[in-house]
Amino acid sequence: MSDDTNDFRLEQTGSAAAAAGPEWKPVTRASTYELVIDAVEEQIMAGTLGVGDPLPAERDLAMKLGVSRASVREALRVLESLGVVRSSGGSGRGAGTFIAAMPSAALTRFLRLHVALTNFSIDDVTETRIQLERSSAILAATRADKDSLAAINAQLAMMDTPGISLETFNDADTAFHVAIAQAAGNQLFSDLTGAIRTSLRKSIFSSFSRVDDQQALMAKLQSQHHGIMDAITAGRAEDAAALTEEHIRFAASRLPGLSDT
Amino acid sequence: MSDDTNDFRLEQTGSAAAAAGPEWKPVTRASTYELVIDAVEEQIMAGTLGVGDPLPAERDLAMKLGVSRASVREALRVLESLGVVRSSGGSGRGAGTFIAAMPSAALTRFLRLHVALTNFSIDDVTETRIQLERSSAILAATRADKDSLAAINAQLAMMDTPGISLETFNDADTAFHVAIAQAAGNQLFSDLTGAIRTSLRKSIFSSFSRVDDQQALMAKLQSQHHGIMDAITAGRAEDAAALTEEHIRFAASRLPGLSDT
Repeated sequence: MSDDTNDFRLEQTGSAAAAAGPEWKPVTRASTYELVIDAVEEQIMAGTLGVGDPLPAERDLAMKLGVSRASVREALRVLESLGVVRSSGGSGRGAGTFIAAMPSAALTRFLRLHVALTNFSIDDVTETRIQLERSSAILAATRADKDSLAAINAQLAMMDTPGISLETFNDADTAFHVAIAQAAGNQLFSDLTGAIRTSLRKSIFSSFSRVDDQQALMAKLQSQHHGIMDAITAGRAEDAAALTEEHIRFAASRLPGLSDT
Repeated sequence: MSDDTNDFRLEQTGSAAAAAGPEWKPVTRASTYELVIDAVEEQIMAGTLGVGDPLPAERDLAMKLGVSRASVREALRVLESLGVVRSSGGSGRGAGTFIAAMPSAALTRFLRLHVALTNFSIDDVTETRIQLERSSAILAATRADKDSLAAINAQLAMMDTPGISLETFNDADTAFHVAIAQAAGNQLFSDLTGAIRTSLRKSIFSSFSRVDDQQALMAKLQSQHHGIMDAITAGRAEDAAALTEEHIRFAASRLPGLSDT
């Protein structure tokens, strides 16, 4: 990761550094596993490794790169956690490590951890959610096809079912917002929306559990959901965005602990 | 990561699964290093581990959790790559592994890899950039203080300097957009903006290198930058947002390979 860190720092202090002369920083020796990651990343950036391609076996890769198998294994764990490779166990056909395309789960874990570490405040996360979901609502109202609308409606129907538990409601609520983002047809949007909503899921659930009249709040939220869906279905893009923002702000204000202020 | 993946899938298919009866999925045995990550994550979610806190030494942690030191090391590499822990080498005071707050570099590497793997199309990334930077511009115009404005201006001054190289211009350009996001006072926004802009940095640079009249394009982009800055300084929030969107769309249209369409 040292390369990234330097990139970022350079960009942020570029002009100041140029004005103040050479800048001295502690030197860091990159660990061996980082060099292995860099080697894999180079192949990906160059386009010689793409989704579905196999990596050489652990032993071969270690030999090719002149490093220990333990270093290769550490590097592969990191790439796995970033959703960049997946490993299948066993030794038959289909076994081994492959370049993968699984950003969603990785992004979710990343955001969940950093929200828990309060590196991002709940207010910042809520504000980001509002901006992304406003855009998703506008795009969904403009371009959602029948299949995407049906997927959103399925979650609405779920939440309309009388007598469902708070947990089921909360899950369908998350899925409702993710389905709108998916209807917008932008993969990065829907992954970010899904990851952000999912990173808040436990907080929202435990906060909801402490609300006095849960049924009344669920009914209110659900009527807002219907309003958003009606606007999207009718293609009223600006309405859909405004109702989405109102809905998220209302929920944050009513759920204790979900607002920093 | 198996836990995340399941969470996500459950939410997306919850209602369908309930209607169709029990759903069978391949069972997966979590690797030992994943169990170590889960153990650390639990402490973080519970609030018993916070930023700056040390983790037990590798050997102790392996004993406490009843796993091998290699598994602990693999787990720590992953947490390091997510920006959740940092390790300082050596054996003196300050050596060891600590809970850290370094989401920016991790997010940048994550996005850079997934953009390179075309898990996110350049158009999707550009669209997301536009939405985030529109919001950043509005917030910056509304609430930026003098220090934040000075930081944006420093990058403008850098790009105004006659005779600078394309590389220096490109770095200052990234820093300009990140500084606006930072002026918005939302850490998640500025990290996302920084990560997205940085993930495009190499593509923008190599695309720019192939442009015929680089000086003319740099001058045009820079005049747009000044327009954005004037709007932010004057507190004209909607103008700042509109000019930012226009600027990003213009750049994408003029830089070959930076638009999928």
